Amino acid sequence: MDATLKNKQKAAPIEAPAFEAARRWAPLDVPAAKAEIYDAKARETASAYARNIENYIGTVSIPVGTAGPLRINGRAETREYTVPLATSEAALVASYNRGARVISAAGGCNVRVVDEGVSRTPMFAFETIVEAECFSRLLLAHKDRLQQVVSRVTRHGVLKDVQAVIEGNHVYVDLCFTTGDAAGQNMVTFAADAICKAILDRSPVQPRYWFLEANLSGDKKATARSLSGVRGKRVVADVVLPAALVEQALHTSPRRMVEYWCGGALGGVMSGTIGVQGHFANGLAALFLACGQDVACVAESATGVTRMETTEAGDLYISVTLPNIIVGTVGGGTGLPSAKACLDILGLSGSGNAVSFAEVCGGLVLAGEISIIAAFCSGDFAAAHQCLSRNGRFSREQSHD
Amino acid sequence: MDATLKNKQKAAPIEAPAFEAARRWAPLDVPAAKAEIYDAKARETASAYARNIENYIGTVSIPVGTAGPLRINGRAETREYTVPLATSEAALVASYNRGARVISAAGGCNVRVVDEGVSRTPMFAFETIVEAECFSRLLLAHKDRLQQVVSRVTRHGVLKDVQAVIEGNHVYVDLCFTTGDAAGQNMVTFAADAICKAILDRSPVQPRYWFLEANLSGDKKATARSLSGVRGKRVVADVVLPAALVEQALHTSPRRMVEYWCGGALGGVMSGTIGVQGHFANGLAALFLACGQDVACVAESATGVTRMETTEAGDLYISVTLPNIIVGTVGGGTGLPSAKACLDILGLSGSGNAVSFAEVCGGLVLAGEISIIAAFCSGDFAAAHQCLSRNGRFSREQSHD
Amino acid sequence: MDATLKNKQKAAPIEAPAFEAARRWAPLDVPAAKAEIYDAKARETASAYARNIENYIGTVSIPVGTAGPLRINGRAETREYTVPLATSEAALVASYNRGARVISAAGGCNVRVVDEGVSRTPMFAFETIVEAECFSRLLLAHKDRLQQVVSRVTRHGVLKDVQAVIEGNHVYVDLCFTTGDAAGQNMVTFAADAICKAILDRSPVQPRYWFLEANLSGDKKATARSLSGVRGKRVVADVVLPAALVEQALHTSPRRMVEYWCGGALGGVMSGTIGVQGHFANGLAALFLACGQDVACVAESATGVTRMETTEAGDLYISVTLPNIIVGTVGGGTGLPSAKACLDILGLSGSGNAVSFAEVCGGLVLAGEISIIAAFCSGDFAAAHQCLSRNGRFSREQSHD
Amino acid sequence: MDATLKNKQKAAPIEAPAFEAARRWAPLDVPAAKAEIYDAKARETASAYARNIENYIGTVSIPVGTAGPLRINGRAETREYTVPLATSEAALVASYNRGARVISAAGGCNVRVVDEGVSRTPMFAFETIVEAECFSRLLLAHKDRLQQVVSRVTRHGVLKDVQAVIEGNHVYVDLCFTTGDAAGQNMVTFAADAICKAILDRSPVQPRYWFLEANLSGDKKATARSLSGVRGKRVVADVVLPAALVEQALHTSPRRMVEYWCGGALGGVMSGTIGVQGHFANGLAALFLACGQDVACVAESATGVTRMETTEAGDLYISVTLPNIIVGTVGGGTGLPSAKACLDILGLSGSGNAVSFAEVCGGLVLAGEISIIAAFCSGDFAAAHQCLSRNGRFSREQSHD
Repeated sequence: MDATLKNKQKAAPIEAPAFEAARRWAPLDVPAAKAEIYDAKARETASAYARNIENYIGTVSIPVGTAGPLRINGRAETREYTVPLATSEAALVASYNRGARVISAAGGCNVRVVDEGVSRTPMFAFETIVEAECFSRLLLAHKDRLQQVVSRVTRHGVLKDVQAVIEGNHVYVDLCFTTGDAAGQNMVTFAADAICKAILDRSPVQPRYWFLEANLSGDKKATARSLSGVRGKRVVADVVLPAALVEQALHTSPRRMVEYWCGGALGGVMSGTIGVQGHFANGLAALFLACGQDVACVAESATGVTRMETTEAGDLYISVTLPNIIVGTVGGGTGLPSAKACLDILGLSGSGNAVSFAEVCGGLVLAGEISIIAAFCSGDFAAAHQCLSRNGRFSREQSHD
Repeated sequence: MDATLKNKQKAAPIEAPAFEAARRWAPLDVPAAKAEIYDAKARETASAYARNIENYIGTVSIPVGTAGPLRINGRAETREYTVPLATSEAALVASYNRGARVISAAGGCNVRVVDEGVSRTPMFAFETIVEAECFSRLLLAHKDRLQQVVSRVTRHGVLKDVQAVIEGNHVYVDLCFTTGDAAGQNMVTFAADAICKAILDRSPVQPRYWFLEANLSGDKKATARSLSGVRGKRVVADVVLPAALVEQALHTSPRRMVEYWCGGALGGVMSGTIGVQGHFANGLAALFLACGQDVACVAESATGVTRMETTEAGDLYISVTLPNIIVGTVGGGTGLPSAKACLDILGLSGSGNAVSFAEVCGGLVLAGEISIIAAFCSGDFAAAHQCLSRNGRFSREQSHD
Repeated sequence: MDATLKNKQKAAPIEAPAFEAARRWAPLDVPAAKAEIYDAKARETASAYARNIENYIGTVSIPVGTAGPLRINGRAETREYTVPLATSEAALVASYNRGARVISAAGGCNVRVVDEGVSRTPMFAFETIVEAECFSRLLLAHKDRLQQVVSRVTRHGVLKDVQAVIEGNHVYVDLCFTTGDAAGQNMVTFAADAICKAILDRSPVQPRYWFLEANLSGDKKATARSLSGVRGKRVVADVVLPAALVEQALHTSPRRMVEYWCGGALGGVMSGTIGVQGHFANGLAALFLACGQDVACVAESATGVTRMETTEAGDLYISVTLPNIIVGTVGGGTGLPSAKACLDILGLSGSGNAVSFAEVCGGLVLAGEISIIAAFCSGDFAAAHQCLSRNGRFSREQSHD
Repeated sequence: MDATLKNKQKAAPIEAPAFEAARRWAPLDVPAAKAEIYDAKARETASAYARNIENYIGTVSIPVGTAGPLRINGRAETREYTVPLATSEAALVASYNRGARVISAAGGCNVRVVDEGVSRTPMFAFETIVEAECFSRLLLAHKDRLQQVVSRVTRHGVLKDVQAVIEGNHVYVDLCFTTGDAAGQNMVTFAADAICKAILDRSPVQPRYWFLEANLSGDKKATARSLSGVRGKRVVADVVLPAALVEQALHTSPRRMVEYWCGGALGGVMSGTIGVQGHFANGLAALFLACGQDVACVAESATGVTRMETTEAGDLYISVTLPNIIVGTVGGGTGLPSAKACLDILGLSGSGNAVSFAEVCGGLVLAGEISIIAAFCSGDFAAAHQCLSRNGRFSREQSHD
């Protein structure tokens, strides 16, 4: 067996990241690639990435464009955001930009974070259901004592709720935390680990085996369970667009957009999606990437519900509900140079800003749903993609500023 | 209404991207952010991004690390890959690296692309189900003539199948294409648009209204429908890990890993996921990002099935099934400088390589599932994340090269 | 071990069913129960049930009521049905009756069976994905020869389609049949068994093991996969109810019913249902029970989509889509005395009637959705249930004939 | 418009049920059907059904067989049950009978009801998300006062929990109750109606409109949401079958049954079922029908999880988890003559028995899963169905008593 696979009791001495990177490039023999990825800046900033990546060989550059202004009537105040979006997909920024400007022209959208919580869900396996039920009952009886365990591990994480789900002789324990201004996935891992060990220390019923996480949490996966609950932040956003604005700016009508919504919702239902929506993934991926969020969380964050109705006055009501917005403005990748710069463009870098950042997610997704559905209704969708991906211009779709 | 929202019959004269970018920075008043994002390289390469982004303001830098060697016994030949992964999440590269090396130590994994196809699903709305059924019948009777319409629009896209799904007076038409070495989402949009117009030209039954896409395709969404079918490429990968290797390199046993798999699978089932798996999203997001793929597609690509069994000999059989791998090695963002560099590290830039790139996706995801499940089984998961995110080192988890 | 559990190479001599039943009652010691269930009629007709039940002890009596007339504009002709419904749930018959009469007052509903097919899905397990892919490819290459195997086993079953779904080293084969006027679940079992044995006789790649059915078919389970396909018969039904009729007969308005539909659809989406609908299960269970269908199939048949829209004229459009109507008018329980009597009330006993019976399912479910949604809109739901379950009367809900 | 459709302010005088039934038969002109359904017993007992059905025309007879003894180690004591099953599907009783006897031979199965609760989920629609969030907050702040409203409406129903789920400007309120020994669907309807009216009386924020139920509850529908929670009773059951018993009584091995389980579970996952299981619907439908339960509830009750594992000693561990068992031993159809008789066979008629009846559901479903999976493993499935449906005998499958 390859010696490098063995457990190394003694860690290798820590080499300078730049030295390590150079060593990794040597056998690859792709000098042009090295010049692009391991350029002067990547060499100079190598140490900045030491706690965010292993086996570092440099950086990739992803283009960023801006959408906005996006006017949001949030919990605290009304603000206008210029939203940085990193993507290589033509038409994406143009479409979100159009939606943002329509929202702002209508006076801005309402956005609220209506629930918060990040779960770890360890599993304990027993001999039979008899022991499983006993363990579950004891656990729930003592759940009020678990916060003190959490407090020893984290200053920001607070245990919000404990649930037990029994499946045969398995007990899945849903430990749900609030995590301050951090996305909090590591925080809840450490806190859950401490809780499990504390439980096992005291429990008269011992499992045959147990695991720290067993998938019930929905970590990095679209799940039906989170749709009516929360994972991260549950964000809702809505706006009423006057019929005249829909016609002039979006080249369609409220009735047609509702017809699209209905057809698209049932198309989604028949495809077996989690929720019904258009393209939450596009905007969230681009925003997460720009702002140092965990892009893999798009798998769970891009679920939810879009709804459109005509009002009695004949205008267009639109809402989006995003139950799984896993974001933070501290920790993770948010302190890396580019991420900090993009958060600064939003004015949302650092602590105290996670709720506002989640509100930007809500407003941005609302903008995207408006724009893409309008493009399908007006028949512009194919034409806009054709123009923007071939010559970078589409006169009707894109609002240049 | 804001004048910029109106339809511009006459496009603005095309400004130089660099000039436009400078103009966009002016009102933002965040000089440090501008220095990071709109640096010399971003200014010089601005025009390279003209067909991939709108409202360009510069580039973000994302760190890249490598995992491997990852030995893949693919359709054509057996190859070893060094896999570039872009992420800001500590422990991600280390975990995939460990899994890749274990696979290679076991002789490599088998990977096959077993099906291909990308759909657009337009919807046609009629007065009643009577017209809907009539339209559907006529459409299917003439489906063999539609390829000639496609050929006029694209050289690479081939119409593979046509299905009609009736829901009340709605007819959803599933137009499924193969798309050569491109991910092909724009290609199928243009081809479907041409098909729809050709159908409507000739159909004796006309819809009240229709839309080019109505969500049945599962575009950028996890869907149950794609799980037993295909969206993009359906990739399966498997490997048998000898019990001794599991014990020495992964610090656990085949039986324990199967117990985890079973508990995790049912945790996933109870959470209402699409498929059952651990963390497909992590590796796919990092690989897609490095290699110029559409990162928003993680929402659909990160679904599938992981399975573990003990063999009669007591070794560990592991397979992953990824039904929705939407990737390409030409088109989209694959030609941008950093993406091309990362594809070159893999040796998979340009045409003729899409199937091999999909095989890398399969092998990488298999590596990740092995490593993360082993970490849960050995109890290392929390410790590894704690060490790697705090000081960049974890002696037991990470195999340094 | 209990001797009766062992494999009996020699079957017990066949006793008269009535004698056996009497023997089973002896140890139970519940004379009043025996008098009810094993009454004179149950004794006399015991032999009629010999091929439909084992360990016979008598019959249960379930009350039947009628709903209708229900006017259906079906494939062949327009007919009015009086629909027998067996249930013990107060308000059920009254509600379907109301809906049926409203539909008939609007001129009847359109109903069409738009697709047919019943699947068995055997699974074959191989060493690795390499053999699995090979087996799958060979199977699909020879699928045209399989009908001749089917013809040897059944006169009515016809092989409609063969698909292979690979998951790791497993190959699930979807064998889809049409089954004439029978529900056909046994027919497809026997045909699939013959096909599997024929395949294995000739295949150069042999599985490690295989099973005749491995759940992909969705047999007796709500599945997302069947929702956009078919299991049994895919039935769609629709009707336009004039606004005046909605107001007079249902005490609400088209707009309010659409508002309910929208809220109920999204409630369903957030609950993670398969499709979006109100109460398909109520009517289908009562009709299946009356007419000798397999009541357990309600688990799969009670999925689908209800949709409501206001027309441009302000009337109410309603449709239902039932993808999984597993029914027959021959075979199974359809020949038992009560079932035959109920099918005779419909005029649909015996061969040639399965499509019309499926149309009755569609029309009945449409009636139920109209009535229950109207009851929620008018605020009558709780009151109607209270009256009907307490004194058998509700003046506003029930239309007495 | 048909006069009978109008709101009748003045109820028709209550006719004798028998007189009404005769009047309904007159126009149908199917004398043989009338003789079967409206026989002397149906005429005599007509009034017994007055609160359970409308438009009564008689009764259908469904054959009943028994399975057992089924030995259950329940919450209170260990008991052996003879289980009455009403069905017209050949092989169903034989299969459950076989499973029950195998369980009993192994010493009986453990069964526990681990959670209880039945929900109604009214929906309130507001102008914007701002009012929706305000209403939701106020509601949750006052939820402790709602039990007193419930107490005025029902003696048996107790409000267990209140949750609010916001989707755009919709607030879905999950009112969860325990319902004593009744299934409780009407009880929770009346209680929820009273709660809604009490809330609206006091709320400073008034909805634009509201509905008493909007589908989030999963009433009569398979839902992902209930799978990890509860609807009715959450029942788990398990048993360890010695390898020798599996071989002698079931003609297969523990390893083969686990292989089937794994393949069938993933077949179910790929089909997009709610949970993973074989045929819960068969046994539940037959038991519900015999015992006066609401058969339409099979749509929701037949979801859940089956799991099989080999123990370290090489025996077979099997568990079933049924999250949605909606049953009662008082109210609904449980007092009708046949239902009471069948409950008496179980010894579970009347109050105090609902938990035990739910335990029988768990044990019965476990028996069915064992037997059907064994039949697939031993290759007997097709043969047993062929024999039992053609001549009522299968020597290997069926254990005659």
